[in-house]
Amino acid sequence: MKLKIAVLPGDGIGPEITQQSVKVLKAVADRFDHQFEFEDALVGATAIDLLDNPLPEATLDLCKKSDAVLFGAIGHPKYDNNPDAKVRPEQGLLKLRKGLGLYANIRPVKAYDKLVEQSPLKADRIAGANMVIYRELTGGIYFGDKFTAEDGQSATDVCSYSVEEISRMAHLAFKAAQQRSKKLTLVDKANVLETSRLWRKTVTKIGEEYPDVSLDFLFIDNAAMQMILNPTQFDVILTENMFGDILSDEASVIGGSIGLLASASVGKENAMFEPIHGSYPQATGKGIANPVASILSAALLLEHFGLIEEAEAVRKAVELSIKLNVCTIDINKDNHYTTEKVGDFLEGLIS
Amino acid sequence: MKLKIAVLPGDGIGPEITQQSVKVLKAVADRFDHQFEFEDALVGATAIDLLDNPLPEATLDLCKKSDAVLFGAIGHPKYDNNPDAKVRPEQGLLKLRKGLGLYANIRPVKAYDKLVEQSPLKADRIAGANMVIYRELTGGIYFGDKFTAEDGQSATDVCSYSVEEISRMAHLAFKAAQQRSKKLTLVDKANVLETSRLWRKTVTKIGEEYPDVSLDFLFIDNAAMQMILNPTQFDVILTENMFGDILSDEASVIGGSIGLLASASVGKENAMFEPIHGSYPQATGKGIANPVASILSAALLLEHFGLIEEAEAVRKAVELSIKLNVCTIDINKDNHYTTEKVGDFLEGLIS
Ligand SMILES: CC(C)[C@H](C(=O)O)[C@@H](O)C(=O)O
Ligand SMILES: CC(C)[C@H](C(=O)O)[C@@H](O)C(=O)O
Repeated sequence: MKLKIAVLPGDGIGPEITQQSVKVLKAVADRFDHQFEFEDALVGATAIDLLDNPLPEATLDLCKKSDAVLFGAIGHPKYDNNPDAKVRPEQGLLKLRKGLGLYANIRPVKAYDKLVEQSPLKADRIAGANMVIYRELTGGIYFGDKFTAEDGQSATDVCSYSVEEISRMAHLAFKAAQQRSKKLTLVDKANVLETSRLWRKTVTKIGEEYPDVSLDFLFIDNAAMQMILNPTQFDVILTENMFGDILSDEASVIGGSIGLLASASVGKENAMFEPIHGSYPQATGKGIANPVASILSAALLLEHFGLIEEAEAVRKAVELSIKLNVCTIDINKDNHYTTEKVGDFLEGLIS
Repeated sequence: MKLKIAVLPGDGIGPEITQQSVKVLKAVADRFDHQFEFEDALVGATAIDLLDNPLPEATLDLCKKSDAVLFGAIGHPKYDNNPDAKVRPEQGLLKLRKGLGLYANIRPVKAYDKLVEQSPLKADRIAGANMVIYRELTGGIYFGDKFTAEDGQSATDVCSYSVEEISRMAHLAFKAAQQRSKKLTLVDKANVLETSRLWRKTVTKIGEEYPDVSLDFLFIDNAAMQMILNPTQFDVILTENMFGDILSDEASVIGGSIGLLASASVGKENAMFEPIHGSYPQATGKGIANPVASILSAALLLEHFGLIEEAEAVRKAVELSIKLNVCTIDINKDNHYTTEKVGDFLEGLIS
């Protein structure tokens, strides 16, 4: 297969981890006889520094004409603590999601046997946990009108959802549930929010088309609790943008490290693959960042194009590396490997 | 001291737990020679069923002219799964908060030594955790405009905050931090939301008046993760309404049971005390609900009126009951006590 892949390393640890997943994808191409062509582009704080724009035209263009985007990470503390900043790195990511129409963000979470020990949660609670979070990605409060009053005395963010936005997500999530354990949980705040009531109504109706999938509902506050109390109850979770952001970061503790969690963002025409972790500025350039989330994102990329065996090869390699403790410091405290060494090891296993 | 206390048992397990805290308050009044006068009123689904109104006038009036409100719980599943319901139990609670001007919700969270074993989290992670969450309670997306388009094809919720709303909360939280470990963490999503940027700006400025308190910031997604990874890092957490709802329910896992978490909601003129758990309809009438969250809410009530020794007596009694395992089934799996028996035991300890 021939694939053109846009690589957007972004900020902080983005470049060093993305380098490892490109390495792994190259090894896959070699072994399975594919042609993957990579092209880099700027995004985030890095792009602001050089071009005063978190998402330069050229980057969006490249992404549009590529088959897939491999994304690193975004964000820099110098913008976080400046509430008056006019341009922010995160705008690059949000515009990219919107510009490419990536409305569904898919975040698999599982407890690796070997890492159950490392988790802050007790082993018996998380053993066997295996879920996937379907987070809506181009709507809600992230993309509604936002403004500060002229006198600076108040600010507003608007959260809207349409039946159409909810429906396309719901179909994806129900289909995923059909391929898994046939259980879908909608997370919302229908006892308070009008948008949540529209979610509940729409998803309930669509559920009639998937009689083999059992549908239930949880308020987000309760879900945030259940995620820790009893994570094995979940199979597919469907939720809106902001709740998905919070719940999936929280869920990362189940896996033992946020450095392991990959995500796929898909739309009608484009697809992007990125770790769920951030740019981790304190770690930049130190060789301590875990490249596995990015490498597993590459596996999702392969799977997206039907390269199932290839994706399996990457996942098997990752599982072996964890079993052998060839891991960065977030997982292997005593005798850790560098970002690059982990990448090399996985490359070697696949080649 | 003479106190007039409005008692709003509400729905589900509300009545049975509130009965226990009233019992405890009566024991306190007897022992410390106070006069507490109690009067009951309707709220929630119970009030809808009888009067078609989740917050009858008479209830709000009673609350206004009382010194404090003791609130049970609210919510009934028959409304949750009906997105078209015109009146909902939760409106009763929200109108009450707004009507009484209860802008600050204060939720203490601590890991009880004895319960560390029961928590889904490993003991070494949570031992010593002791924080208080200051949740804004009468603003944000809970109280903004909300509407469904005429064609039913979209819905909207508006989230707004004013500098004034943020400031009064910030002062309370900074003052609390001064009395504790002098650390305040603002939780927001300033990389995406305009309202969050106003929070960050306003709180940063107010922080200059409290140079002895160290202020830091966390995005809500990261906070949801840190709450589990490393809860002992927190002292006072300050956050907006929705984030506070999610984060405090999540934090309940640290304590070992949501059945232990109390809250105080305060405003300029009124104060209300309620457990953070919900109405737990499945448990109604079974005698299995944990009354401790309500009883600790009564302790917060006592403290609010400067009855420090009295509040301490209640807390000591609760601690002893936990040590002796005189607990409901959420905590004592093998040989549990009923809701009433726990109440009786605590009453006995205090008398
Ligand atoms: C960087 C930030 C804007 C982003 C989000 O909130 O969506 C991130 O937290 C994520 O989850 O991908
Ligand atoms: C019942 C509901 C409206 C309420 C809220 O979301 O505020 C509850 O979850 C709480 O936290 O007190």
